Amino acid sequence: MGETGEFSLLGELLPQVPTRDDVVLGPGDDGAVLALDGNLVVSTDVLVEGVHFRRDWSSANDVGRKAIAVNVSDIEAMGASPRFVVIALSVPADLDAAWVRDFHAGVLAECEAADVVLVGGDTTRSRDVTVAVTVMGATTEAGIVTRAGATPGDVVALCGRTGWAAAGLAVLSRGFRSPRAAVDAQRVPQTPYGQGVVAARAGATAMIDVSDGLLADLCHVADASGVAIDLDPDAFVVPEPLAAVGAATGADPMAFLLAGGEDQALAATFPAGGVPEGWRVVGTVAVGSGVTVGGSAWDGSQGWDHFGKK
Amino acid sequence: MGETGEFSLLGELLPQVPTRDDVVLGPGDDGAVLALDGNLVVSTDVLVEGVHFRRDWSSANDVGRKAIAVNVSDIEAMGASPRFVVIALSVPADLDAAWVRDFHAGVLAECEAADVVLVGGDTTRSRDVTVAVTVMGATTEAGIVTRAGATPGDVVALCGRTGWAAAGLAVLSRGFRSPRAAVDAQRVPQTPYGQGVVAARAGATAMIDVSDGLLADLCHVADASGVAIDLDPDAFVVPEPLAAVGAATGADPMAFLLAGGEDQALAATFPAGGVPEGWRVVGTVAVGSGVTVGGSAWDGSQGWDHFGKK
Repeated sequence: MGETGEFSLLGELLPQVPTRDDVVLGPGDDGAVLALDGNLVVSTDVLVEGVHFRRDWSSANDVGRKAIAVNVSDIEAMGASPRFVVIALSVPADLDAAWVRDFHAGVLAECEAADVVLVGGDTTRSRDVTVAVTVMGATTEAGIVTRAGATPGDVVALCGRTGWAAAGLAVLSRGFRSPRAAVDAQRVPQTPYGQGVVAARAGATAMIDVSDGLLADLCHVADASGVAIDLDPDAFVVPEPLAAVGAATGADPMAFLLAGGEDQALAATFPAGGVPEGWRVVGTVAVGSGVTVGGSAWDGSQGWDHFGKK
Repeated sequence: MGETGEFSLLGELLPQVPTRDDVVLGPGDDGAVLALDGNLVVSTDVLVEGVHFRRDWSSANDVGRKAIAVNVSDIEAMGASPRFVVIALSVPADLDAAWVRDFHAGVLAECEAADVVLVGGDTTRSRDVTVAVTVMGATTEAGIVTRAGATPGDVVALCGRTGWAAAGLAVLSRGFRSPRAAVDAQRVPQTPYGQGVVAARAGATAMIDVSDGLLADLCHVADASGVAIDLDPDAFVVPEPLAAVGAATGADPMAFLLAGGEDQALAATFPAGGVPEGWRVVGTVAVGSGVTVGGSAWDGSQGWDHFGKK
């Protein structure tokens, strides 16, 4: 797949990729051929050095893992089952080949965690390391869950963490490397793999992955569904490492939880009483529009918009 | 799909994209949902400014068209039916928004020509314009055609042009803009849309898209199939514009035809007598290995490896 003339490292690495029964034809030809037992669900995202990651903050392995995690999250958020990944990697000509190997190892590790198979790729040169990932999944018998189905009377529930990556970014931006749990969260998100289908089967009415911040992403759900969402501030307990970052940086740790992006949690709405195990209720859906916290507009930061652009 | 925080132009443009019955859910949610009536065939390729195109040589419209054409070609080369496209576009912060609009128009024009639908995208910043395209298609009842099925006694046939883009590059590299037909070929390839499935239905035993040069790409077929391929030099007639470029630059126009890349022709092997309309026989398959021209090794250039890297 693609050209391998001047930089065939990914071509060398691809044949080492594990395969699976639904991979009819893996990497090495013009295209991969894949069996799907539902409709195709697809999403693409690009990570660029200096915008989405920094090589002095994240290892190549971290970048590889993050590239998979943030993309698979989009398939989960449709209530679908992630299956396959292709990667287009652009790197500077003088980049150490060890970086690409380490990146590739991170990609494979996260693919295994996410239960997806790398089926193709392309490698070329560019000044900035650029990672474009396309993830493909399959719908299940539960159907898809869009952003548009939230209904007054539903509850809002969250699966996974929020605020950790933002706290990590606050620390890294100041030149520190601890608390380690927050810094690690910025480097590699903990996407709650498998929970998208769990939510769909439980009857989720709307779902989104929290990549830009809980408030910002729930605004998309409220807008698409034509409803109001109110979050319960008491549903959010500040974890100790986030409290520590808040104390050290002067930031309100609630701003991390409510507006910090990049943790790739899943947020969904369910009929009351239908919230599955592993999800916790954090708010309610009502007639109206917009997103509030405890009945009021949130006056803190409104989301994450790349490095230093809050 | 993806983030639209700081640069939402593609987000604004995506809703204008035409849709189709097999698009269950188009752009705007976490992922697109698509119906396929066969197995999924997928390929990804990245075009980088300064490596695959130059903004002073190609319009944004050209780049958009080329990004689609080179990717769809890979699905054609599997004998499959191209259906859907997603694009991850990275652009410098100071790039004129008109460039992106013109790029988008080129993407849509080529999608229409190729009969594929743009179903998602992501836009972000980078220093070089970087276009990562993933094309998805469906297998037909004719099955897939890999590079590995060529059999001694088969004939080699070609559909589409070779050498035009390389001649155009030779001209552009010297600061000229004519012959216009060759220059245009470098800017936007003429992928023979629909011919991949035609070849599969006709019983093609192996197929590849000619992106790196006919000899180089047929080497992949010969290697994968474990056969020898011999091209008939008399099957190649030098078109007048390529003769003109050869005369002006001192290049052998046969080198354009045999080793020039980027025209996205399709090369396939068929049982003798099984070559479909629109394809022309240019060689034969025999026991052995490697690719020859008129029984001898080709002593000219061996392929295209990005700008100035022959």
